Parts: sequence; structure tokens; C-alpha cells
Amino acid sequence: MLRERTVRLQYGSRVEAVYVLGTHLWTDVYRSPYRRARVTEALHGGFCRFTLTTVATQGSTHQTVTVSYYEQEGNSPIDQAGLFLTAIELSLDVDADRDGVVEKNNPKKASWTWGPEGQGAILLVNCDREVPWLSKEDCKDNKVYSKNDLKDMSQMILRTKGPDRLPAGYEIVLYISMADSDRVGVFYVENPFFGQRYIHILGRQKLYHVVKYTGGSAELLFFVEGLRFPDEGFPGLVSIHVSLLEYMSEDIPLTPIFTDTVVFRIAPWIMTPNILPPVSVYVCCMKDNYLFLKEVKNLVEKTNCELKVCFQYINRGDRWIQDEIEFGYIEAPHKGFPVVLDSPRDGNLKEFPVKQLLGPDFGYVAREPLFEPVTSLDSFGNLEVSPPVTVNGKTYPLGRILIGSSFPLCRPPTHPPVNEKAEPPLVRAVAGEVASLGGMSSKRITINKILSNESLVQENQYFQRCLDWNRDILKKELGLTEQDIIDLPALFKMDEDRQAIAYFPNMVNMIVLDKDLGIPKPFGPQIEEVCCLETHVRSLLEPLGLCCTFVDDISAYHKFLGEIHCGTNVRRKPFAFKWWHMVP
Amino acid sequence: MLRERTVRLQYGSRVEAVYVLGTHLWTDVYRSPYRRARVTEALHGGFCRFTLTTVATQGSTHQTVTVSYYEQEGNSPIDQAGLFLTAIELSLDVDADRDGVVEKNNPKKASWTWGPEGQGAILLVNCDREVPWLSKEDCKDNKVYSKNDLKDMSQMILRTKGPDRLPAGYEIVLYISMADSDRVGVFYVENPFFGQRYIHILGRQKLYHVVKYTGGSAELLFFVEGLRFPDEGFPGLVSIHVSLLEYMSEDIPLTPIFTDTVVFRIAPWIMTPNILPPVSVYVCCMKDNYLFLKEVKNLVEKTNCELKVCFQYINRGDRWIQDEIEFGYIEAPHKGFPVVLDSPRDGNLKEFPVKQLLGPDFGYVAREPLFEPVTSLDSFGNLEVSPPVTVNGKTYPLGRILIGSSFPLCRPPTHPPVNEKAEPPLVRAVAGEVASLGGMSSKRITINKILSNESLVQENQYFQRCLDWNRDILKKELGLTEQDIIDLPALFKMDEDRQAIAYFPNMVNMIVLDKDLGIPKPFGPQIEEVCCLETHVRSLLEPLGLCCTFVDDISAYHKFLGEIHCGTNVRRKPFAFKWWHMVP
Repeated sequence: MLRERTVRLQYGSRVEAVYVLGTHLWTDVYRSPYRRARVTEALHGGFCRFTLTTVATQGSTHQTVTVSYYEQEGNSPIDQAGLFLTAIELSLDVDADRDGVVEKNNPKKASWTWGPEGQGAILLVNCDREVPWLSKEDCKDNKVYSKNDLKDMSQMILRTKGPDRLPAGYEIVLYISMADSDRVGVFYVENPFFGQRYIHILGRQKLYHVVKYTGGSAELLFFVEGLRFPDEGFPGLVSIHVSLLEYMSEDIPLTPIFTDTVVFRIAPWIMTPNILPPVSVYVCCMKDNYLFLKEVKNLVEKTNCELKVCFQYINRGDRWIQDEIEFGYIEAPHKGFPVVLDSPRDGNLKEFPVKQLLGPDFGYVAREPLFEPVTSLDSFGNLEVSPPVTVNGKTYPLGRILIGSSFPLCRPPTHPPVNEKAEPPLVRAVAGEVASLGGMSSKRITINKILSNESLVQENQYFQRCLDWNRDILKKELGLTEQDIIDLPALFKMDEDRQAIAYFPNMVNMIVLDKDLGIPKPFGPQIEEVCCLETHVRSLLEPLGLCCTFVDDISAYHKFLGEIHCGTNVRRKPFAFKWWHMVP
Repeated sequence: MLRERTVRLQYGSRVEAVYVLGTHLWTDVYRSPYRRARVTEALHGGFCRFTLTTVATQGSTHQTVTVSYYEQEGNSPIDQAGLFLTAIELSLDVDADRDGVVEKNNPKKASWTWGPEGQGAILLVNCDREVPWLSKEDCKDNKVYSKNDLKDMSQMILRTKGPDRLPAGYEIVLYISMADSDRVGVFYVENPFFGQRYIHILGRQKLYHVVKYTGGSAELLFFVEGLRFPDEGFPGLVSIHVSLLEYMSEDIPLTPIFTDTVVFRIAPWIMTPNILPPVSVYVCCMKDNYLFLKEVKNLVEKTNCELKVCFQYINRGDRWIQDEIEFGYIEAPHKGFPVVLDSPRDGNLKEFPVKQLLGPDFGYVAREPLFEPVTSLDSFGNLEVSPPVTVNGKTYPLGRILIGSSFPLCRPPTHPPVNEKAEPPLVRAVAGEVASLGGMSSKRITINKILSNESLVQENQYFQRCLDWNRDILKKELGLTEQDIIDLPALFKMDEDRQAIAYFPNMVNMIVLDKDLGIPKPFGPQIEEVCCLETHVRSLLEPLGLCCTFVDDISAYHKFLGEIHCGTNVRRKPFAFKWWHMVP
């Protein structure tokens, strides 16, 4: 907000002007052209001094300022210049202190700072869908179809106080920049108590809106929605301005004499690590996974969350629900809701997120691939987030995002829409360790046969080196020690593309539901009718208070090169920690 | 750089491995599968302890690490695992301490910090053209045609020291990310002393390059060029990596066992304010401006810079050289040169910057319009930079950029390629003030006639309000006081688009050459054969040590709605202050 305003006197006459409380008027009579050009002539070489009466103060609507000119020795003014000031109060207000309520004229509303003491308002991308017959998210058009939609928006109040009407021709205008017009939308409710209509006043194709001045004390309520997530090319800040425009005469444009600005930061999309409590477990119903579904159902029933099944008419034969979507959420002081991020993968599950997830208070955002063609790196099995970590003294209270990439030279995968917590991509976390001496329980394959397969041993030595390279990166980037890492036995074989394929179900590809783990049943060698791999994994995890349930995913997932983790997806509770309390 | 590396022992045998000096090897025998799976069997339930001899130290190329296993009570080892280490030194080096010389293995080379104590290397966009027969800047292709071109690039050295050859199959690979491949290019000189060839090894379409290992102590010299200026979507940092890849066997891919990384920041384009000493003054030669040219030549001869005339076959009738281009420069510790920014305006002068300015150590960069259609706001008469200022305690040692925009709602102009010093656009600086009582010297128009033209008076009151609005913004954003502002008299009239047109030559549209000012000759009322406007302006500016030369631009510029400032352009010396010493 500009607090200083220059006004010009017109000597010998009184100028009418509107004065906004809180600003300082600046009128420098000594540097006026009058003194230099005309006063000296009119006063025959005399000097001038001036009297400036106090300017308008709160409570009085009109105030007069008079500048009187005297000859050097004289006592009665030989000329005067006056200002007739009409005082008004004008402020554009938002919830800059982040308590969920719009306060009045917060002095920090025009900037944005991080941290628990930070100030500046917050906006949600209105990416849910309140009414079922819309095909897209609420923010994709410039309409409001439901009162509930307003609850996703941030409130903004234009407060005015002053005379019954402004001097003729004055205008109050709300406006945004061209750059912000595809990032923010503003609505106004006409007739809020009777047959209300929602009017789109700023946003796409609408850069400004003239506000009706109603006189007295007035509060005009606006609703603001975000249209675009912050990402690499957009840090997330948008500004909305109000200006008071002064009128001079019909053929002359209006001039701004006061501007107030508010800044919003659009809330980032936030990923939820495994340690957050689960809300829903999603799994696809296939022709061939009845027994698996049943086992998953039993597992979920042990926990405090619910099972959501994606049926065949939607999944169309695609069981890899982990790869198609990533669950996250957005949050502002007034509201928050889950948001599903749709991957560029677009398999047969591609209609699932919009058709089954998008809805009231359930948002949706998609990301196009950064590079063509889409590869398996764009699948969201390749996108994870760590729990909160501290690395070299720097805290990541929302964790660090992990994105897999090929070493060293393949194209990087498409990044999630930014995330204040996002960091340079890391190689994917794989906590598994090759058990070069582990075995496979099968009627046809003996342990000795595996051990004597030299190329298999060598391939696993190679995969172990890849895992160790990842292990070293994770230790460095997440600040882990060896004690933070639990090695689970695994065995791989190499396919024709030299990619690793799990030889027996890869237990690291588990589903984590609080303390309950759904682990691919490894079918390892049995000792006294108990699988020694299960026994080993239990001995590693149960002392940590975790409960291991081994789920048979062989026929419906493992044989198609995935496990229970790839075939499920978990929506989790948001962090208790508020993202705006971070200091990035 | 990863300093920790996990290696796996193979029990009962000795593993060969290459070890890079400066890393720490990590081999946790207690958590090895051996102990858990086989050692316990082999040792009949015994425990193991281990001996780890010191790892390779500088000077010795090979070193052996032996882990011995004992029974709990026994003294002679019952099993051993060994590492046969070949030590090498490997570092990718740049001028991270910014003294113009590549140092050795700077520990801060993989990050980038601002300020006088900051570290991290700097890169120039190779936007000049060393050979005249190329149609574009040097960075537009992947070739080097001249040894001089290498001087624009930053040096990068790969230092290796070790045995005559690496173990069979090992490779050293330089690589960049896909995202950086259109931001950076790397060249290598083959046969540097005899018939050298310049080989493009990284950049567009080249993500990696296998480096020949030559044995002993070797320094491979590379040359790095920037391809893209930092801007809104690209902060300017690029990374180059080198990895040592370990070989296992023919059918197994290589695995990275060591990576070293260097980071460069691409130097921003920097604008030069009026206070910097002029180097060259550019002006167009037209059919109708012979006398003006002569006056400008006289003015320039008083100063320490040279006049450069753009002839008609290049300017093709376009005299507005201020609008077409903006001079600036780029700078790195090893090199710097001027760079002309070409506006999206593209009048008839559009071929001038590439044909006459681009050349050896004279760079070129163009900006496409952000929004169509191109308007007068995209002309660079609308782009200026302030001198260094301090605003509310924050210092801008390279000034603040000023970009004009219409109030409130027209589209913003295209922004210059980033500039670390760039700030939210301000309304254009106009230091003029309406002299409502000024006059026009003319045979046909008397002062009284002007004064009695009520609509002219009103229009000027309006323009004064616009100027005052700008004045208030400039005071706030540049931290100015009234004492910093000198008001020059001006008079405007309004055209059919309600734009201001100078009634008499607008003296604020001057050219500043050190202390010499070339001011549009105002042709004001004469008192004793001296123009009273010139007298007045001299009285304001000469006490500041400035020398006023009034240049007649009426017939060749003013009548086409511009003045000497619009018809000239000045290339200036760079700031003495280094941009990387800033703390943004």
C-alpha cells in the first residue's frame, strides 16, 4: 500500500479531493510552480509562508486544508490555496494471520512470509468438484454451482466507510495482473439472502471489476479460488489490488489515488509418507484376484481404515493402481481436502481418478509428461516421500520427495506439481537387500540349484551394487545411518532389458497401514512347515512393534511383475504440521 | 559428492574394487547375510569378529583390506573376506572460488552461494559471435569455429591420478540431466597443440560422454558455455557430473561407484543505469536529421565516448533506436562483454542488433513477447533501470529495473531475461512535472492563448496526477525523498487515445553522458533572447555539476512524438560491483 500521496494545490482556489484514512498527503508549497512562476509576480517579489491545518481524522467525513500566503512582513494573507477533503476508509482484507478468519487491515497483508510467525493469506486450488454432473474440477470454469463451493475458497472483504456517496465519477476498482489471471479467480455473491447468484468478477478474461460504493460502513464479501498449483515455473504467489480512482471531467481518464494490495500463496500439493495413519485402501477388483482381495480385506479390517474397491468397468483390466495415482492433500487455515495426483502414465485405469475420486472435497490434479514418450519412470510407483527427516541440521517436516531415475542418462520423470518440500530428485528408495544365499520354495527348484546358478549369483551381485548405490544416496539425502535401515532378503533375475525382476515375491513391496504391514508372501524354504523367510522378516520387524501379515500375491500380481504395493494405494491423514509453518 | 560408499564382502574370497581417494568405505560385517545365513552354520553357532586393515592412502595405488572371522574363543581365523583396492584420485574442478582460475577439488564446488564470500562457478551465455559468416550467436550451434570462442567459456578440468590403466571395463563418464541439456554445452579440444579439433561432448542431444582414462597424473581440460539466460522459469543453475562406473562382467551393466558434481550459475543479463560512464552513443542517420546528428556529434565529442551511426540501409527509416534495443552486459570472473537485448517491438530497425552489434565479444539476446499483440509497452523506451538504491534497509547494488505499464488493466510488457536484480515492475519513471504556467515560443501561439485554453489546463492537471502517482511509487520503491527529485517543466496535450503528447520538446527525455546532458531544446518564451525554460533548467541542474546542452530535435524527432532520448541509445561501462557479490 502506498502511504504517501502527492497532491497539488491550485492557488486561489479550493481543490476537492478524496482522502483515504491512513495515507499521508504531501503538498510541497515551496516547490510549487506557483511560487516560482506566479507568486513572485503577484506578490511583487515577496516570500510566502503557509499554514496547513490538520488533515481529516477518523470520525469526520470532511475536512478542509488551507494554505495561506503572506508577504514577508504582512499579517493578512494575500492568497490562499485550499483542499476540501472527503475522508473515507478503504481496505482490502484477507486472513493474513492464518487463523481462519479475515481480520481488518493487517499491515502485513501485502507480503508473504513463512514460519509459525509468518503472515500472508493462503488459497486453495479449487480442484474438487461439488456437483456430480460436471466433467471437470470446479476451478476449470468461471462458475459456481453450489454454495458449498464457496467453502473451498478464501474469503476476501472490501471494507469501506465514508459518506453516503463518493464525489461524482469516482470509482473503486478491483484488479489483477494479466500474469495472475490464469492463477486466481474471484467471485461475488449477489443477493446473498434471497435468490443468490454467484458472479465471476476477476480471473480468466476478467482483469478488473468496478465495485459499487454503498456508503456508510460496508463490507463486501468476495470468494477467491486458486486455479493453478505452484510448480517449477510458478512460485505460488498471486496479488489482488483495489484502487480508488479520482474523477476530473468527462473526457479525462480516471487517475488512481490509492491502492491496497493483498497477497495469497496457493497451497502446494503435499504427499503423505507411509508413517501417516491410513484412511482408505484402494485396490482393483480383477477377474483373477478374488483370493488376494479377500486377504487385503482381512488386513484392512484389522486397521482403522476402509477398503475401497475399483471395479472392472472402471479399471478395465489395469491392476496397477499404485502407478496410476498418488494421494496427497492441500490445506489452508479455513479448509483442506485430499487431492489425487494423476500420473502421465494413463493406462486403462486412467478414468478412475476423475470418475471415482474427484468429488465434493476430493480434489484432482494431473500432470502432463515433461518429456515424451511416457516411460515406466512416470508411473507413480516411482514417486514416494520420506517421513520427516533432518539432514545436516536442516529439517524437512513434511519429508523429502523421492523420484526414481535411471542412471545416469535417461530422461527424468515428470515431477509432481510443486511441493514446497520437493528437492532434487533422488534415486528411488529400495530398502531391500539381495539375499544371495536366500532360496525359493518350489517343487521344481531347489536351493542348491539356485546357489549353483552362477549367472544368477552374478546378476544379484550387480543388483546389490545398484541397491547399495541407492542406499548411499538415501543415507546422505535423508540423513540416515545404517541403524535406520532394515535389510529384507530378496532375490532378482535379469530380464532382456537388464532390469531386475523379483525371483520370489519382493517383500519390500509391502503395504504399510499404521503398525500393520501387508507383505508379499515370499514362499521361501520351509523349516518345520514355516517359511524361513517369513520367520526372518518377523524377527526383524516385530521387535519394532510392527505386525506382519503375509499376503499371497503370486498369481495375481507377482507373476505380472508387481506386488501388493503396486496393486494398492493408500490415502492417508494429512500431517498435523501445517506447511506454512515451514521455513524453506 | 557422495563420501560414503557401501561395499559388500564375499566371504571366502577377495573382491577387487576401485577406491576413490577421499571417500569412506562402509562394510558392515555384522549385518552381512554371511553371518546370518551361512556363517552361523559354517561356524557352528559361533560369533565372528573382524579385522579391518587401513584402507588405501595417498601415494600407494593398491591396498588390501582383510576381514577375518574367528570362533568366539579361537585365535586363528576360520574364514576371511578380502578387498583388493585400487586407489585413484578423481575430481571434476571448476573456478568455484571465482578468482578466474580453476582450483583443485574445492569442497564447495557442488553448491552455489551469493555474496563476497560466496562459492560456486559462473558461466556466460555464449551469445556473441566470433566469426562473421555465422548468422547467429555462437551458442546456437554445437560447434566451435575459433579459438577465441573458447575464451568466452568457463574452464572445467577433470583431474585423475592413478595406475596406468583402470581395471578392465571400468569407465569414467561425464553427464548432464535432460533438463540441463538445453542450458549448457561442453567442448573438448582434441590435439590441443597440433591441428586441434573442438569436440562437442555434452549439451543438446548429448547427455553423456565417456572420458578416456590416460593413467598417471592427468588433467583433461573442458570448455563450458551457457545456452540460456536465467529467467522466470529457470533460476540459472546447471550441474555437470562425472561418475566412475564399475565393471562386473560382459552381460551386466556398469554400476556407479563414485560421482563428483560441479554447479555453475549462468550469469544474468545486467542493465546499465544513466550514471554509468558512456562508451558509445548510437543514433540513426535519417533523411531529415542531418542537423540533429551534427549536434549530437558535437555533444559526444565533449565526452569520453564515441558516436556510432546506424545508416539508412540498416535502419530502413526507423529512427527509434531507444525502443528497439537495450544495452547491458554479462560478466564472469574470467570474462565479460556487452550484450544487446532485442525488444519484441521489431520495427524496421529489427535487423540492426544482429547485423551491426552482434560480433566478437558483443552478445545478443532476444525476447519474444509474453503476450500478443506487441504494444508500445514492449518498446524499450519503456524499460529503464535505476541507479543503485537502498530501500527500507535493503540494498540494490545494481539498481532496480523499471518497467512501464498501463493503469490498471492492460497487459504487462514482456520482461527482460532475468536479472537477479529484477523486481516487480514499477510504473515508468517520469521525472517531469507539468508547468501549468509554462509557455510555448512560437510565432502563432502566445502564452496567453495557452493559459486561456481550459481543456489544455485540465488535461495537464490530469497528466500531473498521473506523474504524481508515478512519483509516489518511485519514492516508495526506490527509497527516494522529495529532495532526490528534480522537477523539470513540461506541457502536454491529449491525443485521441487519451495519451499524453509533449506540447513542446519534453526536456526529461534527455540523453545522459556522464556530466553532460543532451536536453531537447524546449523553444520556450524568450526573455532578452534567452529561453526562460532553458534558463530555469540550467538553474536546477548546473549547481549539481551537470552541463546542459540543448539539442534541437523538433523537426526530426519531436514532431514524430519522441525526443533525443528515444532517438539515441547509449552503451555504458559495466558496474565495478560484481553481481555475484550481491545477496538477493
